[in-house]
Amino acid sequence: MGPYAGLDLFEKVLDHTEARTDQDHLPTLVASFPHRIPNRSAFLNGEVDLNPAEPILDLLGRLEEAGAAVAGIPCVTAHAPQIIDVVRSRLHTEGRRIRLLHIAEETVRFIRETYPAIRAVAALSTTATFRRRILLDPIEAAGFEVVEQDMEVQTTLVEPAIFDPEFGIKAYSKPVTEAARDLVLRAVARLEEQGARAVVLGCTELPLAVPETHLGDTVFIDPTTVLARALIRECAPARLRPWAGR
Amino acid sequence: MGPYAGLDLFEKVLDHTEARTDQDHLPTLVASFPHRIPNRSAFLNGEVDLNPAEPILDLLGRLEEAGAAVAGIPCVTAHAPQIIDVVRSRLHTEGRRIRLLHIAEETVRFIRETYPAIRAVAALSTTATFRRRILLDPIEAAGFEVVEQDMEVQTTLVEPAIFDPEFGIKAYSKPVTEAARDLVLRAVARLEEQGARAVVLGCTELPLAVPETHLGDTVFIDPTTVLARALIRECAPARLRPWAGR
Repeated sequence: MGPYAGLDLFEKVLDHTEARTDQDHLPTLVASFPHRIPNRSAFLNGEVDLNPAEPILDLLGRLEEAGAAVAGIPCVTAHAPQIIDVVRSRLHTEGRRIRLLHIAEETVRFIRETYPAIRAVAALSTTATFRRRILLDPIEAAGFEVVEQDMEVQTTLVEPAIFDPEFGIKAYSKPVTEAARDLVLRAVARLEEQGARAVVLGCTELPLAVPETHLGDTVFIDPTTVLARALIRECAPARLRPWAGR
Repeated sequence: MGPYAGLDLFEKVLDHTEARTDQDHLPTLVASFPHRIPNRSAFLNGEVDLNPAEPILDLLGRLEEAGAAVAGIPCVTAHAPQIIDVVRSRLHTEGRRIRLLHIAEETVRFIRETYPAIRAVAALSTTATFRRRILLDPIEAAGFEVVEQDMEVQTTLVEPAIFDPEFGIKAYSKPVTEAARDLVLRAVARLEEQGARAVVLGCTELPLAVPETHLGDTVFIDPTTVLARALIRECAPARLRPWAGR
């Protein structure tokens, strides 16, 4: 829901569509209304009362009226059950036709279909997403073995890689600093020692530091790429590019 | 109207908005319906009968219903009078509230306001846009001295820079080849010899080869950047970043 996350999702929809001409690309609407969507973490932390589910529902209604049949939200935090369950249930009770994909459920499906041999999965993310288990719960519910980082790895490697004002990815993303990438890869190494075979890069910033689909035996999953591919699959499965990763 | 042109416009709207938080960004809708917009050149060449004005009007109507107050089309060819004049007149007679900016008129305004000392302006583009004077006529109508390339420059430098299958920008855009950039800069040098002080890079590909805002005494104008800035100016002038070019 950061506007650059919407831009990233749009670009990935285009990049993963099999298209030889402009006309081969899928009809796409991008709605970026950041001033209307309150900070998701602030709501989850009890700092604001308005559930972002309300403005999200309004936006989905507008997209449906403009012709959208299927939608995705490129923000893991918005998939906390306190938000997304309200959105889903209201879409259902109001009889809306638009179908909303779920970024964590699609990530689980992608791992199962693309890497059927993998059993042990980890997820790197902000500490808020990690603590709330927004990705970990759906991964566990799908029957994977969840490999969970120590809180020390979270606070000394992952958090500074994302947020450090001197070298973190939020401050320096084009290009990402060597220091930030190094911290992420050290966190990945710890998860590998614990047995993880797939690592979900569960916030917008981390795939910028690790753009590879795999390193050694470990595969990396970018939920925004997964969501882009799921949107194409739902609209026009024949136009979905074969997966180019390992 | 190529979908990547829409992505490019969206990115430039974000990049040129003064924003410290996600919530500071402007409400934005991107509608990419390439399968419904017939090839603009094919219509102008008489190869198809359907004026792209019709589907463009339909899209603008959908955007208006979804809340858009001002719109821009990131495609110079769609601004041929046979298309855009139909769109404008129908928006007017149907009493639509959405305001449609004009990429060539905004380009003229941008040059006048940003570079008030410049009198002689050139425009590089595809041969179709050049022959139809889609950019040159509005530049001339605004009182600038139009510096026009020889057809030899157009066919031996500009066309291969864009279209050559071995090194052209359409085939290789990330990154652009040295050969393509070299051809564009040779065309620019010829225009400078003819007295041009500003060169409009009038198709989606050319700004990829010359991302600079100026080289030496010559300034470069990217109409998509100009359109992005005009959209911000119309919606929230206080959020328009100061122009970072020379």
